[in-house]
Amino acid sequence: MSKEETFQDLSLNSPSGQQDLWRWLYTELRAAILDRRLKPGARMPSTRSLSAQYSLSRGTVVAAFEQLQAEGYTRTEVGSGTYVASGIPEGFLSATRKPATPVGTASKAAISKHAQQFLKDVEVMPAPHSVGKAFRSYEPAIDLFPVDLWARVASRVLRRAPRSLYGHGDAAGYQPLRRAIAEYVGASPGVRCSAEQIIITSGTQQALDLISRLLVTMGDHVWMEDPGYLRALQALRNTGARIVPVPVDEDGLIVKAGRKLAPKAKLAYVTPANQFPMGVTMSADRRLELLRWAASANAWIIEDEYDAEYRYAGRPVAALQTLDSSGCVIYVGTFTKMLFNALRLGFMVLPERLVDAFRSARSIIDLHPPTLDQAILAEFITEGHFGHHLRRMRQIYAERIDVLKTAADEHLNGLLDVVHTGAGIRTLGWLKTWKSDRDATQKVRKLGLEVSPLSMFTVKYEQPPALMLGFAGCNPAELRRGVSILATALRAR
Amino acid sequence: MSKEETFQDLSLNSPSGQQDLWRWLYTELRAAILDRRLKPGARMPSTRSLSAQYSLSRGTVVAAFEQLQAEGYTRTEVGSGTYVASGIPEGFLSATRKPATPVGTASKAAISKHAQQFLKDVEVMPAPHSVGKAFRSYEPAIDLFPVDLWARVASRVLRRAPRSLYGHGDAAGYQPLRRAIAEYVGASPGVRCSAEQIIITSGTQQALDLISRLLVTMGDHVWMEDPGYLRALQALRNTGARIVPVPVDEDGLIVKAGRKLAPKAKLAYVTPANQFPMGVTMSADRRLELLRWAASANAWIIEDEYDAEYRYAGRPVAALQTLDSSGCVIYVGTFTKMLFNALRLGFMVLPERLVDAFRSARSIIDLHPPTLDQAILAEFITEGHFGHHLRRMRQIYAERIDVLKTAADEHLNGLLDVVHTGAGIRTLGWLKTWKSDRDATQKVRKLGLEVSPLSMFTVKYEQPPALMLGFAGCNPAELRRGVSILATALRAR
Repeated sequence: MSKEETFQDLSLNSPSGQQDLWRWLYTELRAAILDRRLKPGARMPSTRSLSAQYSLSRGTVVAAFEQLQAEGYTRTEVGSGTYVASGIPEGFLSATRKPATPVGTASKAAISKHAQQFLKDVEVMPAPHSVGKAFRSYEPAIDLFPVDLWARVASRVLRRAPRSLYGHGDAAGYQPLRRAIAEYVGASPGVRCSAEQIIITSGTQQALDLISRLLVTMGDHVWMEDPGYLRALQALRNTGARIVPVPVDEDGLIVKAGRKLAPKAKLAYVTPANQFPMGVTMSADRRLELLRWAASANAWIIEDEYDAEYRYAGRPVAALQTLDSSGCVIYVGTFTKMLFNALRLGFMVLPERLVDAFRSARSIIDLHPPTLDQAILAEFITEGHFGHHLRRMRQIYAERIDVLKTAADEHLNGLLDVVHTGAGIRTLGWLKTWKSDRDATQKVRKLGLEVSPLSMFTVKYEQPPALMLGFAGCNPAELRRGVSILATALRAR
Repeated sequence: MSKEETFQDLSLNSPSGQQDLWRWLYTELRAAILDRRLKPGARMPSTRSLSAQYSLSRGTVVAAFEQLQAEGYTRTEVGSGTYVASGIPEGFLSATRKPATPVGTASKAAISKHAQQFLKDVEVMPAPHSVGKAFRSYEPAIDLFPVDLWARVASRVLRRAPRSLYGHGDAAGYQPLRRAIAEYVGASPGVRCSAEQIIITSGTQQALDLISRLLVTMGDHVWMEDPGYLRALQALRNTGARIVPVPVDEDGLIVKAGRKLAPKAKLAYVTPANQFPMGVTMSADRRLELLRWAASANAWIIEDEYDAEYRYAGRPVAALQTLDSSGCVIYVGTFTKMLFNALRLGFMVLPERLVDAFRSARSIIDLHPPTLDQAILAEFITEGHFGHHLRRMRQIYAERIDVLKTAADEHLNGLLDVVHTGAGIRTLGWLKTWKSDRDATQKVRKLGLEVSPLSMFTVKYEQPPALMLGFAGCNPAELRRGVSILATALRAR
């Protein structure tokens, strides 16, 4: 204590030794702000005093300060110093998040047998409190989202909306938003549809859940890409579908294999623009083959284009939906990856014959989506901000994958072969010295990085060991720091 | 056309003869604004010219103008006249809503058999475009909601929220909101719980859907109040429950009858504070009896307190949840009736042993609720606006039921015996001269009023003919106008 008393006593915990020092300092200072050891409006200790007090480099302290600033915990006055933000609403100050918990024994005994099956192996994603952590794979660049612009549009919409918009809304979604989406998907992924075919969802997950509940009966076979998107598998399993893992090659899902395994499957789940997690684009031949099969088997296809907007190299292939002459493709999109996760708005483009059933189902399941959020988003799109933001992000993410690839080639040579992906917000790194990607993941996570093992997404068809790395949500400095920590972790066996 | 050309040619459709004239004019003028026949910023025709042009009383024209004004389509400048609002965002201007459609034949052929059962008899609520329509029963007083205050809180929260709040959120809901709700339900309905027991939902409907999916297995018996809340029945039927209608008397659900019909039911759905639709309060004896049964049968109880906040007479009885010693009560609440429908935020208070299962289920079903909406609501509550609004609405709704009752006694004597309810946002009127409340409803709806027949909510136990009348969302003038139209409709057989 005596050492600390020379300076301001913030009672920071000591670094654990396994953590990046800047991250340790950032976490401790944030905790001090949240606990009000550092009060709103108070001056932050100087970088000089902190670096002396805790024997840190100035660069480390500055990195921690930058992160606090980026997240709005502090503000800097030119020529005066850094202060704890005084405007953080009370709620945020005491926000603590519960870590992920598996479904406990008490719950297991209480819930129905059917639900126990449906909750098998569920991993609830923890709600992280920081942004920009390397290599988080499920968030876009939250820190670059134009928050002030969004707040301005929101404030205008909330004030000027007719009062009726505060009342009961449409189960299919707010009509002007549906129209804006029909226009957008028509222009960009080239999906042909009317606004009437669009059902607003609370994101991809709800779309998959609705599809599962309406189109799949217990015992139906469902083709699932293997490796594939785990949460889609969970949603489709809800209604008791028998999941049929279908292997994937460099042209995407191998339709022949699916036909052999389950020719009469009811549904196929695919990510043709940017296969999750392999990152391949489904070839035109495969697309036609898949559509031919679906038409002959009277099956449905879910085309999940969760990140189709981000393409940095190569030519986009026409969406399955545009080639679909028999009305069996359901195109699923989401704004959570294009704007920000917390928004919880996505959409489905349905074949016409499904529209009224989905509208009714949504009405029983949760009445209708939040109208004002939809109205804000509709304005954000029609005023051109959405298109502008996408163009900007496309450029930034293209730079970020370059940064990651360059840093990886320099520092991870012989350890991890990072794929220079031409699309999306995440990529794979092939492990060169580790046999088990789960072991490698454990090691890397201990040093504070967010990575996932490729094997987490395989059901039946094993892949060589690899790590999934998100790059879109991390700035160049974080990516380089991440690569250097990866090098340390993967070298030490 | 010649008559209209003397004035401004708005090409209004002629009144249908069955509609209230002020409502016809309002609808037509609104359509003219939405179609831009009346352009933003343009001066509205004078009340004098309109009344001359369409042979209407000045009072009729003024009523239509007041409604347009209340909904934000026009603004009045003192001493200058009325203008079309120029600030209505583009999207609103072209908003058209699709009327309710039943699930069509095309959809029926396409969806799974299971889903066909689950969509049986679904009536999708139309999204109405106006507010304050007598006697809409599912909206609170939208026109009195403090929109500017909400917009101010929203703008502040959106600007000042830490960036991490724009990222992935907690499946159980935003922690500060859960804490605020725990405090609120502790103080007001007296529900004892920790923030950890609270799961945020998108409203009562999602709560019922989640409960149905997690706790009910196909074939389970479920007690349902008869008459009762139709949408609860639909949600509970989703998972294939066998609904057991249990009769209701002046003390609420008759537990003895339930025990006789299905002693081993898995779940009972009740609305004890203000039975839907009968408006009775469950007596203390019945509450204890129900809890004793649930404990012995190892059953769950859903306590749906959708409008428990609104009590104008009599003493509140302690919530079932507060008397529950065996942890079988799930308390369900919603902000859609306390604030506004479009918000889509509600909550469940769960017994501890259910918390982690519901959290996981929510995560598979739609990941998590929209974080920023939750943060805005949390601020609105903790800053005291929520409590203030509830107190104000309680007073206003108490006045409105008085107005309705007084007008009904005067004009509907011998036709409709309106119950002076002591709680909630709707009441019943017993039909004195009609045998079928469906016939009466049809007649009344033709004159433009929103009413529902009591028989719509009965499954097995018939009730005398009655109409459900919402009063909270209608101002005194609308209520009186509504009563006078009711008198016309019910007199003419």
